[in-house]
Amino acid sequence: MPVKLSAPDASALLPVPGVKLGYAEAHVRKPNRKDVLVVTLPAGSRVSGVFTQNRFCAAPVVLCKEFLAQNEGVRALLVNTGCANAGTGNLGLQLAQQTCDALAGLLNIQANQVLPFSTGVILEPLPADKVIAGLPQAIANLKEDNWLNAAEAIMTTDIVAKGTSRQIQLDGKTVTITGISKGSGMIHPNMATMLGYIATDAAVSQKALDAIIQYAVNKSFNCITVDGDTSTNDSLIVMATNVAGNAEICEACSEFGLLRAAITDVAIELAQAIVRDGEGATKFMTVTVECGKTEQECRKVAYAIAHSPLIKTAFFASDPNLGRILAAIGYAGIDDLDVNTLQLYLGDVLVAENGGRATSYREEQGAAIMKESDILVRVVLNRGDANITIWTCDFSYDYVKINADYRS
Amino acid sequence: MPVKLSAPDASALLPVPGVKLGYAEAHVRKPNRKDVLVVTLPAGSRVSGVFTQNRFCAAPVVLCKEFLAQNEGVRALLVNTGCANAGTGNLGLQLAQQTCDALAGLLNIQANQVLPFSTGVILEPLPADKVIAGLPQAIANLKEDNWLNAAEAIMTTDIVAKGTSRQIQLDGKTVTITGISKGSGMIHPNMATMLGYIATDAAVSQKALDAIIQYAVNKSFNCITVDGDTSTNDSLIVMATNVAGNAEICEACSEFGLLRAAITDVAIELAQAIVRDGEGATKFMTVTVECGKTEQECRKVAYAIAHSPLIKTAFFASDPNLGRILAAIGYAGIDDLDVNTLQLYLGDVLVAENGGRATSYREEQGAAIMKESDILVRVVLNRGDANITIWTCDFSYDYVKINADYRS
Repeated sequence: MPVKLSAPDASALLPVPGVKLGYAEAHVRKPNRKDVLVVTLPAGSRVSGVFTQNRFCAAPVVLCKEFLAQNEGVRALLVNTGCANAGTGNLGLQLAQQTCDALAGLLNIQANQVLPFSTGVILEPLPADKVIAGLPQAIANLKEDNWLNAAEAIMTTDIVAKGTSRQIQLDGKTVTITGISKGSGMIHPNMATMLGYIATDAAVSQKALDAIIQYAVNKSFNCITVDGDTSTNDSLIVMATNVAGNAEICEACSEFGLLRAAITDVAIELAQAIVRDGEGATKFMTVTVECGKTEQECRKVAYAIAHSPLIKTAFFASDPNLGRILAAIGYAGIDDLDVNTLQLYLGDVLVAENGGRATSYREEQGAAIMKESDILVRVVLNRGDANITIWTCDFSYDYVKINADYRS
Repeated sequence: MPVKLSAPDASALLPVPGVKLGYAEAHVRKPNRKDVLVVTLPAGSRVSGVFTQNRFCAAPVVLCKEFLAQNEGVRALLVNTGCANAGTGNLGLQLAQQTCDALAGLLNIQANQVLPFSTGVILEPLPADKVIAGLPQAIANLKEDNWLNAAEAIMTTDIVAKGTSRQIQLDGKTVTITGISKGSGMIHPNMATMLGYIATDAAVSQKALDAIIQYAVNKSFNCITVDGDTSTNDSLIVMATNVAGNAEICEACSEFGLLRAAITDVAIELAQAIVRDGEGATKFMTVTVECGKTEQECRKVAYAIAHSPLIKTAFFASDPNLGRILAAIGYAGIDDLDVNTLQLYLGDVLVAENGGRATSYREEQGAAIMKESDILVRVVLNRGDANITIWTCDFSYDYVKINADYRS
């Protein structure tokens, strides 16, 4: 079960003026479930995206990048679940293009104004005919107050729908930011791509929006891991409809930081929700590495801890197994690391220093922290002033069960 | 249970002239088990070692490196199980030194002619008094025909003892190579350090021996992984007693390659045995990556496959889940990889090419291969002429069980 996470109320996901969402039950893979989502944006909207680094990136990812580069102004998103359209070669590109063509025809826009997204099994051709057949139904129920349905329509193995909203004041106007995400961690490249969609009605320049998405993704989706497997389809999109009436936000504007902070905040909540819903997760772990020479070396240490199956199984067992954490710090790849000058904390308890267990530490302290469902692991490297925080979950019997049994 | 691995017969582990081995039941952590091993070498022996890259390296590793650098001629090895003496700071160094002092006194050699090794729980001080109290018993049963007892004395969570022998002709003389190893993979930094000891009676120069161990470790112990966790205590030692009567092997000698091949062969068998005895292992996987631009990029792809929990759980389930393997190749970190020109084989069956499933591939073929206990995953990158082969095992319920329950 997800760790301290439940689906949002429909009323908690605030409409974003200009953004309409519609869904269909298109039977892409299974009957009786929402599996196609259409999002429409008004002319003049600005859109920015970041995509998987996986060299086996899926056909829709290829098209998204191409269409964004053509810069014709995005007017619609089209998402299907049930099939990832990845590892499908040229045929996959053609099928993805067909779905964009079809939606563009129905909406009277250009095909390269439609961004396509797919998630589900990979190596199977996209049933484009089913997706296309579902479009009229999705278009028929397009409305602004449809975010929870949209969050449900993009789920695959997710247990709960994920979404959140914020409102801030920009230039005296109330601006809304609403986002949804899906993914049970990155642990299912063939059935649980990570997708995130964040929309705002703020007026913001393309350059400022590009800067905001880069900042936000580095603080959120790039800081989560379930098992280190990077999907073929991961995508994050930020959309700004430009209808709030505020003066356009540029990078140098005084309110740039406000908008960036709010969007980042939404991205962090959406990213953390993916970890809390990680396959088999029973614990949510925050790993903070402080006082490194560079952010990169902090990230190395944090990921060595977050990816270690030994540490993840120890957290599942509520076992404060300090040796495994110290060993991971030691093999993280910092060649000149002095292990005698770093400190390790569990929660606010100092557990290791001077190259070994802290003399003040008592096993009961660690055991008490390990019983919590939200646990902080904090490493202070004492080498500089760079910091990083990432989030992950533990590794349970159910992880093996879900991933061993998945296709059977 | 280990995958196609059983303990060697005592008679299969050939004595190496000059090398004597003795063990004791010293109750380091548990009663009624061999837990101290002493190995003695004649004067004039040559010894070379490679050690963990973990920055949290254990006290005995620090001393080994120091003593080898002092170059006084190694005359004895002292190994204890039950306590790794890692994460123990200055006290740990002192305690390790005490055990070397004690053995040196009993053998009438210098303390820096004794190489110490420890394996077992970490963050606990070494019970040096118990180790020292066991030395007379170990010395009393020193003999050349004691390799199986030695292999048993260094076990921790290993299910079976690991050892093998070879004989070759050098300069008209029969030369023996015998080795033992321990470790249930690198999956237990606090209880399953990887240790390997290989001895030969060949005469070989120090420089040639150093070259041989580097070559052998790169083809063996550096090619195995269970879960990517690198222990604090990993050590491999190669010893040559120089009593076979052959003309000393140098790097330029015609028979250098023969000796190197035989020692490498022993190292590979010992390393593979560790994977076959990996915690919870039910499958032994050979991952070969061919035709890369560099050995390094082949290694990246091989380890991305071997470390992926998704792939390892799929192998446990005997599920030919090609998408997971392709995704791992895609995120391995080769930025300019063209996924359309590589081939993926399971055993000798071509399963993927042109960016997706091979048209000739039938799921039954993959399913048949997945039922085997020894499985070859072969990736042909078609970018160059570099190759690498590594070995790993699958990821089962028992892995989680063993590692979650270990300390309880």
